[in-house]
This record gives sequence, C-alpha cells and structure tokens, in this order.
Amino acid sequence: MSDEFVMGRRRWLGLTAAVGAGLAGCKHEAPVAEAEPSQLGKPVSAYGERSAFETVKRTLPETPTPEVASSRTPLQDSCGILTPSSLHFERHHAGVPKIDPAQHRLMIHGLVDRPLIFSVEELKRLPSVSRIYFLECSGNSGSEWGQKTGGTAQASHGLASCSEWTGVPLSLLLAEAGVQKAAKWLIAEGADACKMQRSLPTEKAIKDTLVAWGQNGEALRPEQGYPLRLVVPGWEGNINVKWLRRLKAVPEPYMVRDETSHYTDLMPDGTARVFTFDMEAKSLITFPSGGHKLKSPGLYQITGLAWSGHGRIDRVEVSMDGGATWRESKLQEPRLPMAFTRFDVGWSWDGKEAVLQSRCTDDTGYVQPAKDVLVGVRGLNSQYHYNAVKSWKVTLGGSVTNV
Amino acid sequence: MSDEFVMGRRRWLGLTAAVGAGLAGCKHEAPVAEAEPSQLGKPVSAYGERSAFETVKRTLPETPTPEVASSRTPLQDSCGILTPSSLHFERHHAGVPKIDPAQHRLMIHGLVDRPLIFSVEELKRLPSVSRIYFLECSGNSGSEWGQKTGGTAQASHGLASCSEWTGVPLSLLLAEAGVQKAAKWLIAEGADACKMQRSLPTEKAIKDTLVAWGQNGEALRPEQGYPLRLVVPGWEGNINVKWLRRLKAVPEPYMVRDETSHYTDLMPDGTARVFTFDMEAKSLITFPSGGHKLKSPGLYQITGLAWSGHGRIDRVEVSMDGGATWRESKLQEPRLPMAFTRFDVGWSWDGKEAVLQSRCTDDTGYVQPAKDVLVGVRGLNSQYHYNAVKSWKVTLGGSVTNV
Repeated sequence: MSDEFVMGRRRWLGLTAAVGAGLAGCKHEAPVAEAEPSQLGKPVSAYGERSAFETVKRTLPETPTPEVASSRTPLQDSCGILTPSSLHFERHHAGVPKIDPAQHRLMIHGLVDRPLIFSVEELKRLPSVSRIYFLECSGNSGSEWGQKTGGTAQASHGLASCSEWTGVPLSLLLAEAGVQKAAKWLIAEGADACKMQRSLPTEKAIKDTLVAWGQNGEALRPEQGYPLRLVVPGWEGNINVKWLRRLKAVPEPYMVRDETSHYTDLMPDGTARVFTFDMEAKSLITFPSGGHKLKSPGLYQITGLAWSGHGRIDRVEVSMDGGATWRESKLQEPRLPMAFTRFDVGWSWDGKEAVLQSRCTDDTGYVQPAKDVLVGVRGLNSQYHYNAVKSWKVTLGGSVTNV
Repeated sequence: MSDEFVMGRRRWLGLTAAVGAGLAGCKHEAPVAEAEPSQLGKPVSAYGERSAFETVKRTLPETPTPEVASSRTPLQDSCGILTPSSLHFERHHAGVPKIDPAQHRLMIHGLVDRPLIFSVEELKRLPSVSRIYFLECSGNSGSEWGQKTGGTAQASHGLASCSEWTGVPLSLLLAEAGVQKAAKWLIAEGADACKMQRSLPTEKAIKDTLVAWGQNGEALRPEQGYPLRLVVPGWEGNINVKWLRRLKAVPEPYMVRDETSHYTDLMPDGTARVFTFDMEAKSLITFPSGGHKLKSPGLYQITGLAWSGHGRIDRVEVSMDGGATWRESKLQEPRLPMAFTRFDVGWSWDGKEAVLQSRCTDDTGYVQPAKDVLVGVRGLNSQYHYNAVKSWKVTLGGSVTNV
C-alpha cells in the first residue's frame, strides 16, 4: 500500500466518517482484466434467474424427514433489509403442499353472523395493503441457550427473514363475516397434510393481521404458504399459518399440538409459559460473523440486522471488546416497525483477538438482554424465544467463530 | 348476493372507508374445497422457486435480435412497491454477458490523483448502503406519444421497476481516487460486448450514485449488471450502466452513441434536447388496467404506482370520469424518495362506460401533466420522457382498454 493510497484513505475517512477494508489488493494503473465478452450475450428472458456463479443457499438439515424440518436464511451473505423469497427460511410440519389456487378456498365460520367462503381470486380483488415485516421462528437461535451449535449467522440465527407482504387486512374479513363478541379467539388452519392449527387472539387478528397472497411483489412462494397465509406482524413464525384454509371464531383457544407440546417455554420451576407470541427485540452482526475470515488488520465495516416484534428499532450499540465498551452504530433507512433494520459501524481491527457484539433498543425502550440476564429469568429448559446479545470472536489469524 | 351479505358490506364500508369487489361469488356455509393434500408435501430446499401455477412473466419483443431489445415488467399483476428481480424490466444493447465475478474489475482513472482498480470482493468489503429506488427506461410509455400500441400496463409502462439496491457510494471511490476539480464528467463503461458508455456528471456521481452489487437482498441479477452496475437515483435507465468496468474522469462528456443517436429528445423546431437525465413524476393505475375485465358492477379497489426522479410522491388524485372530477387516493407507506409509491382508492362502478386516470404530485410541487400540455411543450417527434396522465377505458361490458 503506497503512501499516496494511505493519504487517499485519510481523505476519504474525513469525507464520510465511515471505514472499509479490503483495498490492500488495489493496484495502480494495472490493466483491466481480460476475459470480458466480445460476443453478444444472452437474449431477454421471461423470468430471470440468478447468475450461475452465485451459490448462496439455504442450509438444509440432516434428517430422514426433510418434509418436517427447517431451512435457514444465509444472513452472513445478506445485504439491505429484504430477504430474497428464494432464500426465505422454511419450517414445515408436513412438507410443502402443491395447491391449485383455482381450487383453494378460505372459510371463515364459527361465532360469526355470516359464514363466508372466499376464493383466492375474490380475496385478491378486496382492498389490500403491503407491509415490510420480518418473520422469525420462535426457535431461532435456540441453540444459543446451551452448547453453541451454530458456527455461522445462518446456523445460529437463520430462522429469520424479511419480506414485503401484500394481503387483505383480516379485520375487513371479520367485519364482513360479522364476528361475534364472544369470539375471543380464531383457530387458523392450514391446508398442508397435517392441517396445522394455531389459536390466534381475535384482538390481534383485528389489530394488524393480514391474509397475505403476495410476497416481494409477486405471489407467495409455495414454501411461504401459496396461495394464502396469515401474516401476524411481530409474532412468532408458527402462528403465521401457511396454506390458510380456515378461520374458526371460538370463545377459547383450542390448545392444539403446536401450542402445547411445541412452542411453549419450559421455566426453571417446571411450569410452562404458553402463548408467548411476541418476538422480542434482537440483533445480530452479519459481517464479520462465524465463518468469515479477515485477511489482515485494517479498516472494516461491521454490519448487521436488528428487529423487534414490538415496533421500530431506535438504537443499536456495537462492542468490539466483548461488552466492556459500546459504540453507537448508524441505522440505515428505512427503519420500519416490525421489519429488519440494517446497522453499520466502522472498525479498525488491530489484528488482536476481539469479541464483537451488538445490542439493540426498540421504540418501547426495551433493550436486548445479555445472556446471563436472560438465563437468569428463563433458565435453561427453553428451546424458544432466545434473544440475548450475540458474540462473535475474531481470532489472531482473522478467523471468526461463534462463542 | 343475499341481503345479509349486502348488510355485511355496508358494515365493512363503515369500518374501513375503503371498498372492494369480487365477493359476488361468495357462498354461505358451502363446503371447503376438496383436492387438498393428505400426503406429505415437498421437503425443504436450498433455493426456492415460484409455484408451477404462477405464469406471470416479462413480455418479450418479436425481434430477430432479442439480445438488443427490452422485456417489460407485468405491472398489471404487481403488488406492493417492489419488483421481483426475476421480473425486473430489461434493456440490453448487446445481450446479457456471462461474467465471472472473480475475474471482473472496476477501474477508476483519467483525471484522478490515484488511478485504482477494484475487484468485486474488494468493493463488497467497503462501506455500503441499501436504498429502494425505481429504475425506468426513458423510452417507457413512448408509444403513448402517438398511436397507442400498449394494450396493457405492461405493454405501455412496463419499462419501470423498483428494487432495493445495495452498493458503495461512488463519492467514496472518487474521494479514494482523488478525483480532480477539472473532472466535471465521468465516462461509465459496461463490460458487455458493445462496451456501452454514458457520460455522467461528476456532481451527480458524488451526490447519490451507487456502484451497486446487491439487488433485493442478494447479488445483482445477470440482466441487471452482475456483478456491478451504476445506480443513478431518479435518472433514466440507460445511464445506470450495467456490468460496470470503467469510470474515466474527464472534463467534458464524450457524446457517445447512446447520448446522441439515442436518448435525446427531438423537439418540434428540429433541435434536440440532450442529457435529459431526470425522470419526471409519473403515475399509472395498475388495477383495473388494459386487459383486465370487471365481471359486474360493484365495489372495486383502484390501485396503482407513482414515482418521481425528483423525490417523494406527495399526492395522487384519481378520476373516474376522464378528468372531469378528481378524488384523493390513499398513499401506502413507506413513501420513499425516488421509489415506487403504491396508491389506492375505492370505486363504486355503476356498470357504465368510464375513463380512469391518475395524476401525481411530487414533493417539489411538480404535477404530472395532461397529454395535451406535454405535447404542447415537446411536440410529437420524441420517443423519450413521456410522463403524461394515463387513461384506461372501462367499457359497458367491463373490459378495460387503452385509450
């Protein structure tokens, strides 16, 4: 790196108050690379695909039943706040059904004045709204409770994604059906082979829940509930019922399998928390994170994602010394409620061991807890709703690992 | 439609002050559709694809040279503000090159203190930002100047799309290279077979231009310039040079092919406007639009998109009577500068002929012009920069056509 180059770096730092890395390899006046095309490329196409050179993918579990399993979003390769639909995490309980939208129906019945059945076409003609929301499995980062099994951001935190969802406000359908006062809950049921059910409080259904048919500007993907799913903003993934076929208005929850044997939080005293719908505020450094390798000491842009089921992210602090000191990160716009927010902060790595952490605060004032605080309250029996501060260790050689 | 149902509709109207349609087919207490799966569906997968039932696609031109052509975004099927990368419009001048990102380089040279060459990996390590911006070919809706050839929103206005772009601010690279005061322009050059060039004012390059490597949360698509492109917010598509390989700092524009024989505006007096970069404010009703068919009189949600190269959309008015009267539409959030904004408004169609129009206003106070006003200023020689109010005619039978 020449003196001139270093001067340039200084000027640039003065201009932007931000930092970067990787320029050590830049050359001056070197020739432009060869191997550029001199013949016509491919023609226009009806529906594009990504470059054959791109290999980023969801991780698949090693399991004899990949129909009852999850796949994880490659957060360490993410940019911006949106997750490509092709890379949105999955969690299925009976595989991805193949549903003909012309045949599919949504029934609203039970404690309603006017039971109704909608075709997909009918629903799509109703007033719709589009919102950018994260979706997170309540089991996300569950491996962090005990022995850390996730070597990468994808492995530890990849059951979270963020999309623009389009759908009909459920409040509108419930008003149309004339939902009765006694109907405090709705039983939502999917059309997958297990007819997965969850009990949804009518209050939340009316507040902001969508019957979604669109994702990132086109139809929902099959793995995301095509042709219809619930989108319950800020609440655990499982209640965002996919392949939605039925909403039954009832006075009390049904205590179905996925709110009794699953998706409950076993506490230290042996009791269980149930209906813990809210996804609390959480953040994660995505670069550098487990599996990344820093080639040399120098300037880096630390970046990551933060989100809260309670609203907007107001602040993300970053520590480069394992929590001894904290620096304010820059939050990129837009900062939308119940959506991913991208943060970044410059870091001059001196080549020594370092532990990187992020800690977010949402607009209710809630601060993402340290692990010992979370464990102090919840114990170590839980599988779900782990949202403590995440640490990544940078070793002397620049390798980044989970700690 | 039963009386009860109509009552429900009235209650719902009172609740939301919005309207919809298509419920005529709803049945009461009808059985849930058969043909639902009773066997395990597909397993989780590494990179998802859309449903086999989805056939929405870009329209391809009938041409012997589809490498030098455009494809169009199906705006009549759009939802929200984002365009799926697979459906983003294309305009290529020598086809889509296949570029190995490990081999690709970006050179910055000319009137700079320190000529630099960056690999893609090096650029991705620099501080990046993500922004949701529309991109529009200046030839979009060019057919509207004369005989209308576009029967659908896709055919008439489909050379516009909107993505979340991630990249390095060009200001940062120029500061690093030490761009000199005399360098008022940059010549941007692509790595496609024609080495397409455009002259970009350095002022705009520094203001908000990105060297983008990400689109909608993953790498740029090949059709969008993989691995690197310029994103010049609010400016005509052609200057957002794809497959970016070179930026040369120069004192004056180069007057290249695509800013002389193309992408200029021939005025009535025979002179030509050049360097008309700005995409002025424009809006379009996407439902109902050409090719749609309204099955019966009743309540409909009119919806569409508005955008401005100068900033944020502040207002969209909609007329159902060919411009005699106008109603305020509802603008959905987020409303981001130089991004698509989704608007909607309820409409009770009485079954008679109607002409639907939308008219937007941006935050500079600029109002989208009527066609006669635009033609009065620009004449009829132009191919480019048509942004007048668009009309769709609803016929007695409910068919929607371009007028």
